[in-house]
Amino acid sequence: MTPLVAILMGSKSDWPVLETGAKVLDTLKVPYEVRVLSAHRAPDALADYVKGAEKRGIEVIIAAAGGAAHLPGVAAAHTILPVLGVPIATSSFQGMDSLLSIVQMPSGIPVGTVAVGKAGPVNAALLAAEILGGKHPEVREAVRRYRENLTKEALAHPDPREAA
Amino acid sequence: MTPLVAILMGSKSDWPVLETGAKVLDTLKVPYEVRVLSAHRAPDALADYVKGAEKRGIEVIIAAAGGAAHLPGVAAAHTILPVLGVPIATSSFQGMDSLLSIVQMPSGIPVGTVAVGKAGPVNAALLAAEILGGKHPEVREAVRRYRENLTKEALAHPDPREAA
Amino acid sequence: MTPLVAILMGSKSDWPVLETGAKVLDTLKVPYEVRVLSAHRAPDALADYVKGAEKRGIEVIIAAAGGAAHLPGVAAAHTILPVLGVPIATSSFQGMDSLLSIVQMPSGIPVGTVAVGKAGPVNAALLAAEILGGKHPEVREAVRRYRENLTKEALAHPDPREAA
Amino acid sequence: MTPLVAILMGSKSDWPVLETGAKVLDTLKVPYEVRVLSAHRAPDALADYVKGAEKRGIEVIIAAAGGAAHLPGVAAAHTILPVLGVPIATSSFQGMDSLLSIVQMPSGIPVGTVAVGKAGPVNAALLAAEILGGKHPEVREAVRRYRENLTKEALAHPDPREAA
Amino acid sequence: MTPLVAILMGSKSDWPVLETGAKVLDTLKVPYEVRVLSAHRAPDALADYVKGAEKRGIEVIIAAAGGAAHLPGVAAAHTILPVLGVPIATSSFQGMDSLLSIVQMPSGIPVGTVAVGKAGPVNAALLAAEILGGKHPEVREAVRRYRENLTKEALAHPDPREAA
Amino acid sequence: MTPLVAILMGSKSDWPVLETGAKVLDTLKVPYEVRVLSAHRAPDALADYVKGAEKRGIEVIIAAAGGAAHLPGVAAAHTILPVLGVPIATSSFQGMDSLLSIVQMPSGIPVGTVAVGKAGPVNAALLAAEILGGKHPEVREAVRRYRENLTKEALAHPDPREAA
Amino acid sequence: MTPLVAILMGSKSDWPVLETGAKVLDTLKVPYEVRVLSAHRAPDALADYVKGAEKRGIEVIIAAAGGAAHLPGVAAAHTILPVLGVPIATSSFQGMDSLLSIVQMPSGIPVGTVAVGKAGPVNAALLAAEILGGKHPEVREAVRRYRENLTKEALAHPDPREAA
Amino acid sequence: MTPLVAILMGSKSDWPVLETGAKVLDTLKVPYEVRVLSAHRAPDALADYVKGAEKRGIEVIIAAAGGAAHLPGVAAAHTILPVLGVPIATSSFQGMDSLLSIVQMPSGIPVGTVAVGKAGPVNAALLAAEILGGKHPEVREAVRRYRENLTKEALAHPDPREAA
Repeated sequence: MTPLVAILMGSKSDWPVLETGAKVLDTLKVPYEVRVLSAHRAPDALADYVKGAEKRGIEVIIAAAGGAAHLPGVAAAHTILPVLGVPIATSSFQGMDSLLSIVQMPSGIPVGTVAVGKAGPVNAALLAAEILGGKHPEVREAVRRYRENLTKEALAHPDPREAA
Repeated sequence: MTPLVAILMGSKSDWPVLETGAKVLDTLKVPYEVRVLSAHRAPDALADYVKGAEKRGIEVIIAAAGGAAHLPGVAAAHTILPVLGVPIATSSFQGMDSLLSIVQMPSGIPVGTVAVGKAGPVNAALLAAEILGGKHPEVREAVRRYRENLTKEALAHPDPREAA
Repeated sequence: MTPLVAILMGSKSDWPVLETGAKVLDTLKVPYEVRVLSAHRAPDALADYVKGAEKRGIEVIIAAAGGAAHLPGVAAAHTILPVLGVPIATSSFQGMDSLLSIVQMPSGIPVGTVAVGKAGPVNAALLAAEILGGKHPEVREAVRRYRENLTKEALAHPDPREAA
Repeated sequence: MTPLVAILMGSKSDWPVLETGAKVLDTLKVPYEVRVLSAHRAPDALADYVKGAEKRGIEVIIAAAGGAAHLPGVAAAHTILPVLGVPIATSSFQGMDSLLSIVQMPSGIPVGTVAVGKAGPVNAALLAAEILGGKHPEVREAVRRYRENLTKEALAHPDPREAA
Repeated sequence: MTPLVAILMGSKSDWPVLETGAKVLDTLKVPYEVRVLSAHRAPDALADYVKGAEKRGIEVIIAAAGGAAHLPGVAAAHTILPVLGVPIATSSFQGMDSLLSIVQMPSGIPVGTVAVGKAGPVNAALLAAEILGGKHPEVREAVRRYRENLTKEALAHPDPREAA
Repeated sequence: MTPLVAILMGSKSDWPVLETGAKVLDTLKVPYEVRVLSAHRAPDALADYVKGAEKRGIEVIIAAAGGAAHLPGVAAAHTILPVLGVPIATSSFQGMDSLLSIVQMPSGIPVGTVAVGKAGPVNAALLAAEILGGKHPEVREAVRRYRENLTKEALAHPDPREAA
Repeated sequence: MTPLVAILMGSKSDWPVLETGAKVLDTLKVPYEVRVLSAHRAPDALADYVKGAEKRGIEVIIAAAGGAAHLPGVAAAHTILPVLGVPIATSSFQGMDSLLSIVQMPSGIPVGTVAVGKAGPVNAALLAAEILGGKHPEVREAVRRYRENLTKEALAHPDPREAA
Repeated sequence: MTPLVAILMGSKSDWPVLETGAKVLDTLKVPYEVRVLSAHRAPDALADYVKGAEKRGIEVIIAAAGGAAHLPGVAAAHTILPVLGVPIATSSFQGMDSLLSIVQMPSGIPVGTVAVGKAGPVNAALLAAEILGGKHPEVREAVRRYRENLTKEALAHPDPREAA
C-alpha cells in the first residue's frame, strides 16, 4: 500500500519514542513510511524528501525532534501538507526547549504540535488518522472504533482499588 | 455554503484574537462558522455542539482558550474530527498556562496546538486549510497560492534598510 | 455510611498517589467513594456522575489529574459543590502543566488547588474535612485532634541529631 | 449579620484586587469582614486574629498575598477552618512566586488555591460560598442562581461578531 | 560556649542537607544550636523561639525550608537579627518553589538567601561566619584561612587530566 | 563618618533602583558610600576596590546587577566581608536571569540574595543594618525602631475600605 | 569593500533590533551586508545564500530570529563558517522561546548564541569582530580600542549621584 | 604545537563533561590546553591567565561553568579573544541557571554560548574550529571533512527499524 503518512525523526535514537505512534497507525491500518532525516546534518536531503512527499502520495507528515527542534518547522517550510510536530523530552529542559522550538512557528507556516511525553507520538498518529478520515472513510471508522474502545476501557474499572 | 471549519472560543472577548484566523479562511474561500461556547460555564451546550459537528458537515474544529484552557481538549473529547488548539496569551503567565493546558493532552485524545501569540490564529486557519486540502483540491490550491505569495513577499525586499 | 467525599481520578494508575489522601479520610472517619472517570476518554460518564453527586449526598469532590489536567475543572463545570484539585506530577514538566491546568480556572468556576507532590492528596483530604467540619462537628473535632497530633510530633524531637 | 467569611490581605494596596471577590459575596448575600493583617510586619496580630476566628463565627478564610506570599499559609497554621489562598500577580514574576508560595504547602496544613489574575478573587469568593452552602442552604441556592446566570450569559450571544 | 548561630529547619528530614553547613561552622569554631521548628505545624513554638533568640545570645539565624518555604520569612518576622534562608530542593519544582518563597520577601523583612543545591547550606554557614566576623575577630580570621585554603586547593591541580 | 556599607552597581542607570535602599540607610543613620564599578567593563578596578574595602572600614557590601549579574559574585570572590546581592529586574526575563546569576553561587563564596523588585534594595539595606547591629548597638536600636514603626503602620488601618 | 560579515534576519521588522549591531560594525570599520531571508517562508533562497557565503568572502554570519527561531540553526546547517545567533524577544515568552530554539542546537552544528535583549545585537557584532580579529589585525586593534573606551567610560563617573 | 584553544573550567569535576569537546579538537588536529581556574575561588589567577592568553598564542577561549556560571563572562572581561561559554547542567535547575548566567552578558562583553547538555562541549569545540578556520586553512578543511562525515552518517540509515 502507498504510504499516507510519513514519520520523520532527526536521529535513529528517536525511534523508540516514535514507535508507539507507528503502532497506533498499524492498529488503524494506515500505511506509513519512516525516515531518519536531519534538519541540521542533512538539510538538503530533508528538503528533497519533503518537497517530493505530496506527489508520492503522502497526505500527513509527522516530525519529531528535541532541543532546538527544527525538523518539524523545516519540513513545514517545504510543503503544504499538514505537518504534525512531536516534541521529544530532553535531559536538560525536559522538552520545554523542544516544545517551544516546535509550537512557536511564525505566521504562515503551521505545525500542529502534540504533547511532550508518552502521549505525544500516540496522539500525533491519532491526529494524522483523524485528518486522513476526512477523505478516507475507512480510516475515520477505524478511529471511531479506537475511541469507542478507549471509552469502554476507561469505564471498565470504575473503582481503582479492585484487583486488575 | 456549508461550513467546513468551526471556530470556537470560550468568550466573546477572544474574537479579536481569532479574527485574523477567520480572515485567512476568507482569503482561502473556506466556509466556516464561529461560536462562543464555554467548556466551564456551558459544558452541556459545548458537548451537544461538538457531538453534532461531524454530521453537520464540519471537517475541522479550531478552539481557542486561555488560562486553564480546557475548550480544545473538551471539544476533542466529544469528536473524532481533527481539533486544533489556539492558546490565548494571558496577563499572568503570558500564555504558558494556556499552552500547557492545551498541548499536554493525554494519550488518545489529540489536539494539534499552534503558537501562543499573533501567529496562532493565522496558523490554525492555515493548518485547517492544509487538512481540508487532502479532500478539497480547490482548498489545496488556495493554500499553495497563499504560500507562494508568502515566499514572494519574503523575497521582495532583501535589504531591510530600503524604504518600504 | 453515605459517602460525603468523592475522590475522582482520570486513570487507575493515579490511585497510588491518591491513596495517601484516602487514608487521611479513613483516619478522620470521613466516608468517601473513589471513581476512575476520565474527562477526555469518558466525558459523558463524568458529567453524569458529577451532576448526580449533590443529590447522592456528596458534599466535597476531590479530583486529581496530570498534564492537561482537565478533570477537576470539568467536574467543577457540572456542580456547585466545592471541588478540590490535586495536580499530579508529570515526567515532562514535573507537574507545572498539571498545576497551571487546574489552578488557572476562569472566573465563575472555582477549583481549590493543593500542592504538586506528596503533600497534595493529604492536604486535599484535610481541606475536604475542614470544609465538612462546618456542618459535621465530629469531623471538625477529628481535624482538631489530627492537627494537635501534628503539632505534638513536630515538637517531639527538637534536635534533629538525636537518634530517632 | 455575623460575618461568615474573613477576607485577609497583607496590605491596603491589595484591596482593589480583592474587591471583586467581596462584590461576589455581596451578590450572594454572604456576610464577611475584611482585614489588613501582615504575616511579616504584624505576625502576632495575625496569629491572634486567626486563632479567634472560629469562635467568632467565621467559617471560611480568604487570604491574598503576593511575592513570598506567606499570609494564607501562616493563617492556615493557626486555624482548622478552611483557608483559601489568592496569589496576587507581581511585577517581577507575574505571580509565579505568589502561586508557588501559596499552593506548595507542606503536608498537614492545606490552603485551597485559586488562580493568579482577575479570576482569583472572584473564584475564592465563589468557592467560599460553595463551602458555606453545605451548611447554609440559602447560600447554596444563591450559588446555584449565580451559576445558572453564568450559563445563560455564556449562551446569550453564540456569535461573537454580533453587536453587543 | 554560648551558641552564636541558630540553624532551624521545618523537619528532621532536612538535617542531612543542613549538616554540611553545620560542619563548616565546626571547622570555623563557631558555636551553634540546631532546632526543628515548623512554621506551619508549630507556629507558636517557632515564634517563641525566635523572639527569645537575641536575648539568648544568638547573632545570626539560618533557616532552611522547601516548597512553600515559610520558615525563614516567618522567623525574620519575629526578630531583627539577620536571617539567612536556605531553599531546599523539592521533587516537584527542583526548589524553584522554595527559592521564590524565600527570596521574594516583602519590603521591611529581609531574608538573605543562598543557593538551591549543595552549595546552599555551606554558603549560609560561611555568610553567617562573615557576619559574625565584624564583631568576633577570631571568626573573621577563621573565615580568612578557610578562603585561603579554598584558593590553594583551586590552584593545586591546574590540569584536570592529571591523576587526583 | 567613615562609611560602613558600600553600595555597588554596574551602571549609573541602576542608581534609581538602588536609591530606595540608600534612603533606608540614611533613615537608620548608617554611613555608606556608592560606586559604579563594572565586573565586565572594568574588572580590575572592581577587584582593587573590593580588596581594599575591609581595610578602609567597610563592613558590608551591597552589590546590584541585572542579566548575567556577575557583580555581587565577583565582589564576593575578592573579600570575606558579607556581600548582599540585589537582582535587578530585566526587560527580557523579568530578573529571573539576574536572580539565578546571583543566588546560585558555588560552595565557598556566599552572596546573601534579596528579592527581585521594589523590596530588594530596601531589604538589602535593612539586612546590612541588621548585620551591623551585631557590633554597633545604635544601628541595632535604629533597626528595632524601624521595625516597630512598620508594625504600627501595618496595624493602623485594619479595614482597607476606610479613607486613607 | 567586500563584506566580511553577513547579518541575516527573518523579517524586515527585525531590522530596528539589529541596527545597533550594524552600527558597532560601522564603528569598527568591519564591512558587512544585510539580508532579509526567512527559514520558513523562503527556505531555498536562504540555503542558496548561505551555501554561497564562504566563496563570496563572508567570514562570519550573524542571524537573528524570534519564536521558533530556526534561522540561525538552518543557516549553520548550510555552512562551516561561524554562525552567531541573536534571539529576539517575543511578546509571548519574552524571548525564552527564541533563546532555547537557537542555543539548544544538536551536536555537530554549532550556533554561538548571545543575549536576549538590547545587548544581543551589539555583542553579536563585537563577537564577530573578535573572530575576525584573529586574521585581520586592524579589526583586532579596533576591538581593543572599543574595549578600552568601554572601560574608560565605566570608570568616568564612579558616583552615580553626580550630575551627568 | 602551540595551543590555539584554551579550555577552562571552574572545577576538576567538570572535566568529564568537557572531555568530549577536547576529543573533537583532537580529531580536528587543533592544539589546545586545559586549565582548572575558578572565577570565584581564584579570581586573580584567572585574570592573570586570561590576560596573558593572547600573547601566548591562544586564539579562542572555551569556558564552562554551572550555577551562577561566571567563568565565561569573567574571562571575557579580561580579553578581546572570542570566548565561548558552555553552560553545565546543574542538579537544581537543569542548567537554566548556568545558561542565563552565561548568555545574558551585558553590552560590550560578548560570550558565544552553546547548548546545555551533551551537545554543548562538542559544539563549543566545533565553533572554535570554525573560528580558527578563518585564519588556518587546514582547520577549515578539517571542519569541512567532519561536517561531510556527519552528513554521510545521518544519511546512512534512513530507516530506523533496520538493524544497526
